[in-house]
This record gives sequence, structure tokens and C-alpha cells, in this order.
Amino acid sequence: MGTIIESCAKAADKVRDICPLVHCITNYVTVNDVANCILAIGASPIMADDIAEAADITSISKALVINMGTLNARTVESMVAAGKKANELGVPVVFDPVGAGASNFRNETAKRILENVKISILRGNLSEMSYLAGLEVSTKGVDTSEADEKNDPVSVAKKTAAKYNCVAAITGAVDTITDGKRVARISNGHPYLSKVTGTGCMTTGLVGSFAGACDDMYTAAVTGIASMGIAGEFAYENAGEIGSGSFHISIIDAISKMNSQVFAAKAKIEEV
Amino acid sequence: MGTIIESCAKAADKVRDICPLVHCITNYVTVNDVANCILAIGASPIMADDIAEAADITSISKALVINMGTLNARTVESMVAAGKKANELGVPVVFDPVGAGASNFRNETAKRILENVKISILRGNLSEMSYLAGLEVSTKGVDTSEADEKNDPVSVAKKTAAKYNCVAAITGAVDTITDGKRVARISNGHPYLSKVTGTGCMTTGLVGSFAGACDDMYTAAVTGIASMGIAGEFAYENAGEIGSGSFHISIIDAISKMNSQVFAAKAKIEEV
Amino acid sequence: MGTIIESCAKAADKVRDICPLVHCITNYVTVNDVANCILAIGASPIMADDIAEAADITSISKALVINMGTLNARTVESMVAAGKKANELGVPVVFDPVGAGASNFRNETAKRILENVKISILRGNLSEMSYLAGLEVSTKGVDTSEADEKNDPVSVAKKTAAKYNCVAAITGAVDTITDGKRVARISNGHPYLSKVTGTGCMTTGLVGSFAGACDDMYTAAVTGIASMGIAGEFAYENAGEIGSGSFHISIIDAISKMNSQVFAAKAKIEEV
Repeated sequence: MGTIIESCAKAADKVRDICPLVHCITNYVTVNDVANCILAIGASPIMADDIAEAADITSISKALVINMGTLNARTVESMVAAGKKANELGVPVVFDPVGAGASNFRNETAKRILENVKISILRGNLSEMSYLAGLEVSTKGVDTSEADEKNDPVSVAKKTAAKYNCVAAITGAVDTITDGKRVARISNGHPYLSKVTGTGCMTTGLVGSFAGACDDMYTAAVTGIASMGIAGEFAYENAGEIGSGSFHISIIDAISKMNSQVFAAKAKIEEV
Repeated sequence: MGTIIESCAKAADKVRDICPLVHCITNYVTVNDVANCILAIGASPIMADDIAEAADITSISKALVINMGTLNARTVESMVAAGKKANELGVPVVFDPVGAGASNFRNETAKRILENVKISILRGNLSEMSYLAGLEVSTKGVDTSEADEKNDPVSVAKKTAAKYNCVAAITGAVDTITDGKRVARISNGHPYLSKVTGTGCMTTGLVGSFAGACDDMYTAAVTGIASMGIAGEFAYENAGEIGSGSFHISIIDAISKMNSQVFAAKAKIEEV
Repeated sequence: MGTIIESCAKAADKVRDICPLVHCITNYVTVNDVANCILAIGASPIMADDIAEAADITSISKALVINMGTLNARTVESMVAAGKKANELGVPVVFDPVGAGASNFRNETAKRILENVKISILRGNLSEMSYLAGLEVSTKGVDTSEADEKNDPVSVAKKTAAKYNCVAAITGAVDTITDGKRVARISNGHPYLSKVTGTGCMTTGLVGSFAGACDDMYTAAVTGIASMGIAGEFAYENAGEIGSGSFHISIIDAISKMNSQVFAAKAKIEEV
């Protein structure tokens, strides 16, 4: 229990030392926040989604983040091309299957990416991950549906990790991360995080930043997700009562203050 | 006079109870703010603009918002497909004809959407709505031109409502909303709202949220537009003197605090 | 030394009087901030990137800003078409070659734009401008690489200005602007500006605003770049310790307060 927090706390400093370049092919709704979160945690974002350069940009990067928040036919090709290049070069790939289960197009795209690209870390909500694990789901848009909340996150995460041979991370009130052997449960965070669009995408951006700085993908995923949870707690303290606009800005403020001391003092991580 | 404010105040609570899913096909300039306003008012946004899923996403949504702020050939097809699906299923469609009158492409696209999709609520500024009403206009970009300010908003709104058989809403210093019979004039708001990009788009997002929660489209339009006006007043009080960045964030803070009490206390709506 | 500050200070008031329409074809990462900065400095932004209207929108605008932050095949055509129309009508063109040197696609696109469009002001970081000047570069993404910091900005700027017959502006810890004859060095700014995504794009948006308000492109470039530097200083004073989210918002606050008095009191510009 101490061990995982210590490893993550070290990662929180290491990402600032290394400042890894993180290539994101992501949606246009939350892309600015994702870039600013990556900068705030100490890494360097680059957004490039055209097929003419996606693989080239991946090849100079330390991590690739693929997020299917606003899919279109053009960028799906770029995601696959960048993912294959990342696999070729050993660059870790973090995949955020936004809205998997909500439309055929998203389902087919997620399938295509997972069949063509070896994913290092898969991060989604319980609906999305249940869908990818092969369970029946009833997704209402991009948020976890109430019906899907009956699923057990630990078992869904284990199933997903085994099926895709990756670290699987399910975020929610309590987050669950597993590499198939180790299982971490994080109880940081605040319900207000769901009142700002893109906190999931931002979390994936943080996970990508740590994937670019860590050797162990499980540690990267746990550090990124716990960092967002801790930031949500600070943001609630500092701006929760003011309103959701100020809370949003305060999340990024808190991420920009993250380091090993803050992480070690605040992280609530249990390995089960 | 009391009646419309009471109906709108009820809607301000109902949207938080129902939390309608609002599908937006909108521009990439202001999309993040639109999503955050929809969350702040108590609804749930989903942005999806590819033809491969636009109609599917509409079919799980309670309202569709079409905004032509940054048009392109790809998304115009998605707007029409989603709009037709919405009509088929009885999902209300809110249309924001950003920059109508400013380029042939925008004019033709607005025409195409209005010919192919039955619109529930049409919201624009006086230049845009004058153009759609069939009047001569001299648009300067995406803001109301001075020359068009000579037009009478009530008569332009009535003409537009009759022509397209919809609720027509013209926002400005005083907002005008009509369903052809009832006419509401809202005097909430603050001039600083024009110093932040996308307050029109955000207003349309709020109108879409209420369209997903109300049976009466006139009430939905009035509630959405008055909510933004009230938020602008709070934002000016809280952050007007600090600068336009803080004012921007404070708008979203104020929207996140909206409810029936705040609405009833602050709304300045007259029916004429 | 007094002269350039006086001319720039006048421009800081003139842009608010004229409120020029500034057409931006820019990236989806930072577009909202660019639009809000253009509004904050007193100009009016319009974002339109489809080939079906790009030239039409340029023809009603006072300046065109081309930014290749998230290039794609579709918008490159629009950049060239809008640029040619701007040249035909005498509308100034400001070009931000984001990531030039980082991929073949960016290199070829920059080349194509520079061959087909007469640029008024070219603004980039030292890596990008070194690449365009024809020097060897080792770009790491969209930021200046350490290896390229050995290049002398004054000589790179002069080389670029001569090669493309334009005002060349290199931003960094000290900014360098030249029209081939005059050379200005600006020492305003704060290192935290690099911790927010898009401060370069925002600077280019400010330069575009002044290009739409000034006859002299050298003055326009110096005023836009110094305005961002001054805003960075105020933002650091007001919010630097809070975190990078608040610092970001505070930059826009400070831009919205810019005028001739503030400019004259704060600008640190030397002509060499």
C-alpha cells in the first residue's frame, strides 16, 4: 500500500524532470483543457491528427494518446496509423474509448483500434469499459448509465485487462486500475468533477504524460488518475462553492502544483 | 407577465431533475463553453458531428442543437441527417444560424437546413434573423451590423416565426422571442456579454437544454435566453471589473447556480 | 526608443476605435483563446476555414491570420485561397508556422503557403523561424528546441525578413521583430507564458488585430507581441502563484485592460 503511493509520488516529480512530448489525437471539445493539463503536470503536448503527419509526430513523442470523443472518418485513419507507428517504436499508447457503446460508429471504431493497435493503458468509465469487456450495456451518451452501475468495476477491469492484454482503468466515484495482477482502488476525487466537460479526457491526458515518463504502465495509470482526483479535491476546497466555471479553472491550478510531496500527502490508494 | 416568469422558473428546476441529453453539432471555437453551459444548467451534452453517427446520437437525445459557427462541407451533411432524424422522432431542433448573411456558403447552408429540417426554435442576432426573414442586410461577420439595427426586432421575429413556423428568438440588448402569437421581451443581460466569444452559442446551448426539458418551445426559448442574461448580470457584478477572462468564467459560475428562486428573483420579462 | 513605444501605444487605442474584423484560419486547440484575445484587445474575430467561404470571409475582413497548429488537408486549401484573396485586396496576412521543422507535412505546407501567399508578418519561435530561414534545426514538437537556442534571433529574423520580404518576428524570452531595416527587441513577458498552451497563437491573434488597425506592419507586430508580454507580467502578478489555470484567465483579463497608457507605462522595447 505504501509502495504504490511511493512509486506514484516519484513519478509526479519525474514527469517534470523529463518533460515528455505527448502526442494527442483527441476531440475538439476538450482539447484545450487536455493540452493545458499536460503542460500543468510538467509534460509537453502536441496535437496533430492528419494522416499526413500523425505517424511522424508519434515517432518524435514519448507517448500517444488516442481519444475518440468527436470521431470522424478522417481522424480514425490517423489514430490507427499513429498507433501502429507507436507499437513499432515501443511508444506507449493510451486509449480513451469515449462513448463506446453509444453508437455503432464508436463501437466499430473502438474495435478497429483495439484490433490494430496494441494498447498500453485503456481508460474509460464503467459503461464504456463494460461494453469493451463484452458485457451488455445501456449507455446514455458519454456518461456511465445508471443501469451499468450494477457491474462490479474490479471484475470489469480484470476482464478488460485480460482481453486486451493491457492496463485497464475504470474511473468513477472510486477508480479501479489493474494490469491483470495488481489492482489499485483510488478514492480521491469529488462529484463536481462530472459537472465539468472533459475531466475524463484530461485524466487520460495526465495518464499519457506519466506513460511518457514511467517504465511501468500500471504506475503511470494510477499516478495520472490519482492526480486528477487530488486536483478535484483541491478545486472543490478552493472554488467548489463559487461555481463550475471557477471549479474548472481550479482543477488546472491544482494540477500545476502537483509534485511528490502533494501526491504522497493526499493520495488515497489501496491495492486489493 | 407573472405567468411566463413562473413557467420559466419551473423549467429552471425541471432541467436539473430530468438532465436531458442534448446533442450538439456545433463549431470548434466555442464548443467547450457550450458543453460546460449545458452541464452547468443541469443537462448533459453530447457532441457528435460525423455522418456515420449523427442520426444515431440524435435518436438517444432529448434535443438537437445545430450551430453553423464554423461550417464545413462534412458537418453540413451531418446537420441535415441529424435534423431529419430528430423530426422523425419528435426531438426538438434548435438552430443557431451563425453568420447568416455573411457568406454565400452560410446563406445556402441555412437555406438547406431550413428547407430540410423542421426547426422548433431559431435563435440569432438581428442581422442573422433579418437575413432569414428575407430582409436586406449588411452583415459584418458574426455580429449585428449597425445598419441592421434600424430593423424592428418584434416585426423581424414575427416574420421569421411565421415563415418557418417556429419559435423565433432574436438576442440583443433586449431579447425578443415569439411563437407567432405570444411575444416576450427580456431586458436582462450586460453589454460585456459581447466581449466574450460564444455567448450566443452558449445561449443556444441553454435553449437546447430547456427544449429537452419543456413541452412548450416558447417557454424553453425564453428560459434559456433569460438565464444567460441573468448570468451576465451576476458575472458583471462578480468579475466585470477584473477583465474579460474572469467575466467569461463567472458567466459559467452563475449558470451553475441557476434555479427557480434565482430565476424568479432576477428575470425581467415582459409579454407584449 | 521613445518613438516606437509611442507609435505602439497609439495603436493600442486605435484598434479599439476601429474594431477591425480579423479572419482566422487556425487550430482547434487554442481557437477559443485566440478569439477571446482578439475581442479583449478591441478587435472582432471571425473563424471560417471551409474552402467554400474562406475567400469570401477574407474579403470582408481587415486582416487574415493563418496558423498551422493543427493542419489538415482540407484547411490547407482554405489557407491558400484566403491568402490569395487577401493579397488581391491588400488585406494584411499574418502567418504563424506552428511546428515548422517538426514534420514533413508542416514543412511542405509552410513552403506552399510562403510560395503562394505574400505574407505581411511571419511570427514564430526560434526553432520554427530558423527552419524557415533555411538553417538546420532540431525541433521537438511545437516548442523551441534547446539545440536551436544557439541561433542568434536577430540574424535569424533578418534572414527570414529578407527571404520572404516581410516583417519577421521571433518570440522568446526576448522577442525580436524586424522589417529588414528596423529591429525591435522586447523584454516584456514571463516564463509562465510557456506553461499555458496557445500563448504563441494568442500573440499571433493580437498581431493580426493590430495588422487590421495599423498601416505599418512593423508597428503592428511590435504592438501585438509587447501587449502579450505585458499581459503576461500582469497575469503573473495577479495569479502566478495560484496556478496555471488562473494565470491563463488572467492573461485575457490583462489584455482586456490594454490601452495607450498601460502600454506606454509598461512596454520594454529597444530598437537596435
